[in-house]
Amino acid sequence: MFTERTPRVAAARQLTRRAGRDRDRRFLAEGAQAVREALAWARAGHGRVHEVFTTAVAAQRNAELLDRALDQGIPVSEVTDKAADGLSETVSPQGLVAVCDLVDQSLSDALRAAPMLVAVLVGVSDPGNAGTVLRVADAAGADAVLLAGDTVDPHNGKCVRASTGSLFHLPVARSRDTKAVLAACREAGLRLVAADGYAEHDLDQAERAGQLAGPTAWVFGSEAHGLPDELLSETDTALRVPIHGQAESLNLATAAAVCLYTSARVQRSA
Amino acid sequence: MFTERTPRVAAARQLTRRAGRDRDRRFLAEGAQAVREALAWARAGHGRVHEVFTTAVAAQRNAELLDRALDQGIPVSEVTDKAADGLSETVSPQGLVAVCDLVDQSLSDALRAAPMLVAVLVGVSDPGNAGTVLRVADAAGADAVLLAGDTVDPHNGKCVRASTGSLFHLPVARSRDTKAVLAACREAGLRLVAADGYAEHDLDQAERAGQLAGPTAWVFGSEAHGLPDELLSETDTALRVPIHGQAESLNLATAAAVCLYTSARVQRSA
Repeated sequence: MFTERTPRVAAARQLTRRAGRDRDRRFLAEGAQAVREALAWARAGHGRVHEVFTTAVAAQRNAELLDRALDQGIPVSEVTDKAADGLSETVSPQGLVAVCDLVDQSLSDALRAAPMLVAVLVGVSDPGNAGTVLRVADAAGADAVLLAGDTVDPHNGKCVRASTGSLFHLPVARSRDTKAVLAACREAGLRLVAADGYAEHDLDQAERAGQLAGPTAWVFGSEAHGLPDELLSETDTALRVPIHGQAESLNLATAAAVCLYTSARVQRSA
Repeated sequence: MFTERTPRVAAARQLTRRAGRDRDRRFLAEGAQAVREALAWARAGHGRVHEVFTTAVAAQRNAELLDRALDQGIPVSEVTDKAADGLSETVSPQGLVAVCDLVDQSLSDALRAAPMLVAVLVGVSDPGNAGTVLRVADAAGADAVLLAGDTVDPHNGKCVRASTGSLFHLPVARSRDTKAVLAACREAGLRLVAADGYAEHDLDQAERAGQLAGPTAWVFGSEAHGLPDELLSETDTALRVPIHGQAESLNLATAAAVCLYTSARVQRSA
């Protein structure tokens, strides 16, 4: 039984912080769903799962899943409850965590497969919001999610949890250089559309004008600040989600859901 | 300066619990945005704002808003930081809170104006989710939101906060009797459409079949459990949001955003 002082556990604990993740190029996927998706991702050759830590209780609950890890040649080690708590970034520790390679790719790799629909997050600091957008982008069939500027690390435990596995499903790239991200999208043949609550035209007008049928990168800013003017001028157009009632705005995840699903519908019916 | 022991403050503190709200038929709207919306709602004759409590710091920050309250004949009282904290249900107390009549109406009142688009929440227990759906329903131009079964009290502080004012914008009704809620929708001429991840047909198919143009009540279940079978059989149809990628599902708020915005678009282009 490993404790929080066992060197491999202590090393894994460093991965609850961004600095540790960036140094080791590894992160923690916590909970049965994330571990299941991590194993599938490793089996598909996208990256390595280095080991799995489990409490005795979680081992009983997830026997089949842990057998699958062992079948894939991944070490599974039992840890104390306290050790498991130290490996958790969430409010209710799951007692089950996999040490994985980071999922992010280079911009050019993430965009290499002639993408039709991409989500770009600029300066989104809330990990729950970022994870929910990853989930929405995956559901809408997006080809990649790009995290630009000061956006939160997608390997943050709260982001992994909110993504409910989607972090392992589609290409993710990140760069502090937002202009480089937009340039890479343009080079990949994507039209850059900023989601902006103050835009002159709305989604429905753009759809009727036939503007959403081609390859599109939606650019989303933070909920608090939106997109800075100097980035709005770098996009091909800006569109707002129409507000039919008295609400001032939508939150990031619901706005992203409406925008990405509109593009998906228009592209797939074309 | 009122403290947490001042009788009016102590009475208001009871409103941070559902039992107190149900007994007094009052609730707390916290923060500048909620107080602003509450004042507009009272000015429009929808209900009464009984008083406003503010810390000295919040009073400086919101001088104009508090003048407006006084102009509307609403008492404004300064309270200590500790008293304000006791009136807050959120993680970061705002130091500003209005004591308001409950906003909810009877089912028949909420549905009396020939509604075209209604959201029904069944057994949604998370106040943040419920508040976000209120915000989305408002943005999509829905005519009412109905909270059925064991759904959270919409006057819960976290729900008020997540709704970002929308709780004051559109008719809200609640009833533990879910079948009565569905019957009231049917009587109001609404077609009952369950949002169900396991439904045979998806939104896009329903749109192409011309099924979304008429008055529609969307019925949403909890994120954890969805809708129980006995309710699914009471609706006119069930539809799923299409999942184009590998995600298993969407969360409640993003699914509601896609469903309600699809209805709004189809109805408004008809």
